Amino acid sequence: MSIDALLYWVGLAAVAVNALTGVLDAGRKQMDLIGALLVAVATALGGGTVRDLLLDRNVFWVVDQTYLMAALATGLVTFFVARSLAVPPRLFLIPDAIGLALFTIVGTQIALQWHTPWLVASLMGMITGVIGGVIRDILCNDVPMVFLKGELYASAAWAGTLAMIGMQAAGMPSVTASWLAMALVLILRLAAIRYHLTLPAFSPQRDANS
Amino acid sequence: MSIDALLYWVGLAAVAVNALTGVLDAGRKQMDLIGALLVAVATALGGGTVRDLLLDRNVFWVVDQTYLMAALATGLVTFFVARSLAVPPRLFLIPDAIGLALFTIVGTQIALQWHTPWLVASLMGMITGVIGGVIRDILCNDVPMVFLKGELYASAAWAGTLAMIGMQAAGMPSVTASWLAMALVLILRLAAIRYHLTLPAFSPQRDANS
Amino acid sequence: MSIDALLYWVGLAAVAVNALTGVLDAGRKQMDLIGALLVAVATALGGGTVRDLLLDRNVFWVVDQTYLMAALATGLVTFFVARSLAVPPRLFLIPDAIGLALFTIVGTQIALQWHTPWLVASLMGMITGVIGGVIRDILCNDVPMVFLKGELYASAAWAGTLAMIGMQAAGMPSVTASWLAMALVLILRLAAIRYHLTLPAFSPQRDANS
Repeated sequence: MSIDALLYWVGLAAVAVNALTGVLDAGRKQMDLIGALLVAVATALGGGTVRDLLLDRNVFWVVDQTYLMAALATGLVTFFVARSLAVPPRLFLIPDAIGLALFTIVGTQIALQWHTPWLVASLMGMITGVIGGVIRDILCNDVPMVFLKGELYASAAWAGTLAMIGMQAAGMPSVTASWLAMALVLILRLAAIRYHLTLPAFSPQRDANS
Repeated sequence: MSIDALLYWVGLAAVAVNALTGVLDAGRKQMDLIGALLVAVATALGGGTVRDLLLDRNVFWVVDQTYLMAALATGLVTFFVARSLAVPPRLFLIPDAIGLALFTIVGTQIALQWHTPWLVASLMGMITGVIGGVIRDILCNDVPMVFLKGELYASAAWAGTLAMIGMQAAGMPSVTASWLAMALVLILRLAAIRYHLTLPAFSPQRDANS
Repeated sequence: MSIDALLYWVGLAAVAVNALTGVLDAGRKQMDLIGALLVAVATALGGGTVRDLLLDRNVFWVVDQTYLMAALATGLVTFFVARSLAVPPRLFLIPDAIGLALFTIVGTQIALQWHTPWLVASLMGMITGVIGGVIRDILCNDVPMVFLKGELYASAAWAGTLAMIGMQAAGMPSVTASWLAMALVLILRLAAIRYHLTLPAFSPQRDANS
């Protein structure tokens, strides 16, 4: 698999999985069909849109309609399936973690291909991974998960993207480094949810559980 | 009237009417003059700005100062007129519906002129129509009207823009299709307000009134 | 000092001072290290990013990694220093006022170099000055300071940028006009905090203290 094919297919999978989390979240807020689809589209396409604007690339879903169709189709199916099933809220965290891992790595690779400096590329990856969920949470009137004190989220993404940049600098092929880094982000995030891993907080007393 | 003249004048009218709704909403929150003008400018120019960034066009009000002046002038006049009149809150929904109709159609036509795929163009139109009001509601600390369960809003815009794309594909001149589609969006939105038209919601019990 | 050197160094100082205010604000909300750094980066780079997107320039921190490093370094130092000191909340208003003054003037000068019309350039300067703080306040779940009724904020920035444009039109060298305008914004904002200077508000009864 070439790096371009990986970026295309993993990007499409990330769009679909983020659209799914958008609809699940909208469902908890009792939005109607169009409201849920709008949240799905914004969650699925938001991170990559911000990345493309910052890099001054063509916005990925404006030039290739496939992404928009994938987001709408996933959103529609999820809407009607989830209406007839009771989805436990915690389950929602798993597709959200997958979306975070996929988007972070795709975003970093695209920034590197665009020849940004490495620190900028790592931030761009984290932005791509995180912003879709931030938009979803703002639209659904939640506090964005990424800013909640507690489990690793943006830090898991940042660790993964920095690890990938390091592995590639050490000579590893970019496709291999991408898969390893996606696994790392996913494992870190899921472990953080399971074992409540946290970073040091601002005030000393919160350090107890870090 | 050529399509370019229509896009220019209808665009200017949309900017003015959205600036007016921005000031009316800011007035309810007791903002001062500059706060109200900022909300007016953001409401008037926000949707088209997002559209132009996504299409990688020159941002319309940066290259032509007329739009910014129209927004500021309308905002100023509305500020001083509305201070001395008691405007009933429901009345605010009518200019908001006009702004939605005008901006949606102008946004779709501009995206089509830019040769985006049709599904992207329809979404771009809806974004142009809806985002100004979303920004206004966020700045005024309301829940954005477009995400409220209840009356058709984004769906009225989407129906209008899809109808227009269909009419043009069937051979109708774009100016005629634009006027018809603007009327359709406006009628749908006003009828939705008057008769409480809604879409199916996420949970079955809310389907009762759809 | 050339105008380009002034824009570079004052821009860097503005990034650092805004990163500092971001961390101080995040600290009040008990965010962890990464959360606080993200808020610092968004506060420091947000205003200039929006300006560069609107002008269709290369985003300043994507092409020059120095700005991102300055924001992260200032954020890190502030995080660990502020954890061990009790910073009085009112003190926070002073670096915020400095950041407003520096960013407003740098933003206006860059827009003027980009040959935008003068009214657009003044708005662009105000946007650059104000948006970092708006993003910070939204991320920290406060009502953005700029929209709070009360002391001059955006209006101080606007007055400064219009004064600078006027002085340059009257023939003053741009470096001199920049320093004078920065001082004017800073003095207006600090005086507004100290003496509670306000603008006329929407409803007549609030005019009493203007």
